[in-house]
Amino acid sequence: MALYVQKFGGTSVGSIERIKAVAEKVKGYREQGHDVVVVVSAMSGETNRLIALANEINDDPTPREMDMLVSTGEQVTIALLSMTLNHIGCPAISYTGPQVSIVTDSSHTKARIKQIDDQKIRNDLKEGRVVVVAGFQGVDEQGNITTLGRGGSDTTGVALAAALKADECQIFTDVDGVYTTDPRVCSRAKRLETITVEEMLELASLGSKVLQIRSVEFAGKYNVPLRVLSSFEEGPGTLIVAEEVEEMEDPLISGIAFTANEAKLTVLNAPDMPGVASRILGPIGDANVEVDMIVQNVAHDGKSTDFTFTVSRGDYKKAKAVLEGVVAELGAGSISGDNAIAKVSLVGVGMRSHAGVASKMFKVLSDEGINIRMVSTSEIKISVVIDEKFMELAVRALHTAFGLDKVED
Amino acid sequence: MALYVQKFGGTSVGSIERIKAVAEKVKGYREQGHDVVVVVSAMSGETNRLIALANEINDDPTPREMDMLVSTGEQVTIALLSMTLNHIGCPAISYTGPQVSIVTDSSHTKARIKQIDDQKIRNDLKEGRVVVVAGFQGVDEQGNITTLGRGGSDTTGVALAAALKADECQIFTDVDGVYTTDPRVCSRAKRLETITVEEMLELASLGSKVLQIRSVEFAGKYNVPLRVLSSFEEGPGTLIVAEEVEEMEDPLISGIAFTANEAKLTVLNAPDMPGVASRILGPIGDANVEVDMIVQNVAHDGKSTDFTFTVSRGDYKKAKAVLEGVVAELGAGSISGDNAIAKVSLVGVGMRSHAGVASKMFKVLSDEGINIRMVSTSEIKISVVIDEKFMELAVRALHTAFGLDKVED
Repeated sequence: MALYVQKFGGTSVGSIERIKAVAEKVKGYREQGHDVVVVVSAMSGETNRLIALANEINDDPTPREMDMLVSTGEQVTIALLSMTLNHIGCPAISYTGPQVSIVTDSSHTKARIKQIDDQKIRNDLKEGRVVVVAGFQGVDEQGNITTLGRGGSDTTGVALAAALKADECQIFTDVDGVYTTDPRVCSRAKRLETITVEEMLELASLGSKVLQIRSVEFAGKYNVPLRVLSSFEEGPGTLIVAEEVEEMEDPLISGIAFTANEAKLTVLNAPDMPGVASRILGPIGDANVEVDMIVQNVAHDGKSTDFTFTVSRGDYKKAKAVLEGVVAELGAGSISGDNAIAKVSLVGVGMRSHAGVASKMFKVLSDEGINIRMVSTSEIKISVVIDEKFMELAVRALHTAFGLDKVED
Repeated sequence: MALYVQKFGGTSVGSIERIKAVAEKVKGYREQGHDVVVVVSAMSGETNRLIALANEINDDPTPREMDMLVSTGEQVTIALLSMTLNHIGCPAISYTGPQVSIVTDSSHTKARIKQIDDQKIRNDLKEGRVVVVAGFQGVDEQGNITTLGRGGSDTTGVALAAALKADECQIFTDVDGVYTTDPRVCSRAKRLETITVEEMLELASLGSKVLQIRSVEFAGKYNVPLRVLSSFEEGPGTLIVAEEVEEMEDPLISGIAFTANEAKLTVLNAPDMPGVASRILGPIGDANVEVDMIVQNVAHDGKSTDFTFTVSRGDYKKAKAVLEGVVAELGAGSISGDNAIAKVSLVGVGMRSHAGVASKMFKVLSDEGINIRMVSTSEIKISVVIDEKFMELAVRALHTAFGLDKVED
């Protein structure tokens, strides 16, 4: 008899039909004797509908009132799901974030959870009810309704699981787990039984967007076992664990992330002296452009260096224009840029203790005739920038080379 | 410098355009130096949309969850109106019913207000804000969201006005005041400057539905000056006062109400003995049929009597079927019924001190050749049942005879 916190996203509760399916699924867990707390998002489309209403008034609405507005989305879902559960003979009660005291700071539209009072929920569980809680929302210490920002329902789920010391926080979504890479690009991609929090963080931030990063961080911090599984199909999904499970054959690499949504810019022959990096990146940051990879190599001749970084492709033109001013001021040589690039990353905690992952990666790419433009590494990740046209080829070759391909049935 | 509580109904806030118009109106009052608390309903159509969602699940949804669901309607409106006010330079803040502690009993979907904590609102007013409060909703002592039932936003407005000792509770609606009778039937109907609470109650319950009865009762009980006025046009509207204002020419009659939505049923030759009335009406009540007028005359011969009552037209067949069983059991003669009837009522506190209103009414109707089928009276009201086809004729003739016609410009 376990206690599960189960989170269902907007697509999973997007219609009355789907809400009924969620209710049946929850009822199934109850019938096995488990206690269940359900966290739900707004029905898909609802949050956007509300935002559109606000934008008819004003492009920049009062944040406090924005939270007042959009928090109604989840409130509708919790009521409908509780009614449905009651209707099918599974006693349930719904609560808004404020009602179960999900206390946050006062940063409207992007609040952070400070504490949760779990007493009310524990009492209802004890009386045999399913407790349905609105995701994404809370209340500040002055009693104002706050929201956690887009995707915050995952965070609500994990935070409730931590507060209740739940056996598992189960995130139901439209995929049936975390894959070694995107199955649309590599048909041999396989579902992972487990993945560590660290690996998940690297994969998420690199484009394999299954879960919100914040909720994974949270799960790691509070040691909450997190499971991703499908709303629509049966299956065990993927368990995200805090620490790597020791296994006989510890895989070097857990997954391959990739994105074609970047562009790179290089300042050629920048003077090699302290402060240059910040004089280049300062104005880029001031222009609200976010920088991803940064690479600076040793000076050519003790005097000048090439400084390269990547930005998201939509910011390429803006960043280039900013750089032109910077280059003139610095007395640097010139700018080169390329927006037909892709980033491919290997991620895995096994990498920590094994040298040779990088050299093997480079050899695989070289064997395919793929030239590497940039390299950047962290403890559990190696990213390379290559020409965009080679992206799929690189992913498939690496997937096979690192033993990730699924065994055909 | 007055304090006004202004209530805007669903039609008045039915679109972003209309919400902007409401904001401009409120801003106008602020610019005259008045303090304003605004109470709003859900945007028109929204409550029905939510109820339809619930009914897709179940015809009889959990009342607590129903309140959770429909209370989102007003929450959307308060957020949108506050944003709009802030946008046009009129500082505003919104509150749900629970946030300003509109404490009710726990009768979900038809809760009654027990108390209001006005401190938060007073603080905001002091700091120069317009306070926008969600109508129709509150919170019970256990923290559950409750609703006051349909039309409850008027009640919220009056209750807030009472708690804040406001100078006036202004109910903005789609009519520009209370009329002597329905202008669609009698073109000479005129707007009343003032009307007493008692008169308003009789008119409201008889079909001139401008305000919710409960809010008028509430206004009378707590001595809140209540004004009905138009959201869409300028004008003073009608002031509803607790006590009649003494005037030189006190009118006998304030207004004429009428409805064609009734049917009458008579049990002929019922035994004239104690308990007959309850043996007839008991089964009718058990069948969930509401009875309006009841008339029983003296016995014909000391042995039997005719017992007549009216029900709403939609319940006619059901009530008749119930009566057939009752008649057999009572050993009464038979049943007669008519569903082509109308009820016309004269209302006025002036009637109290003036005899002769009834006889004048009967004479006016007789002069028009209209036969009276039933009569029922209260202290400030006389109602007659006539054939439906004569309804408009009766209303117009009485309107002229009792001096209610407007003076042509």
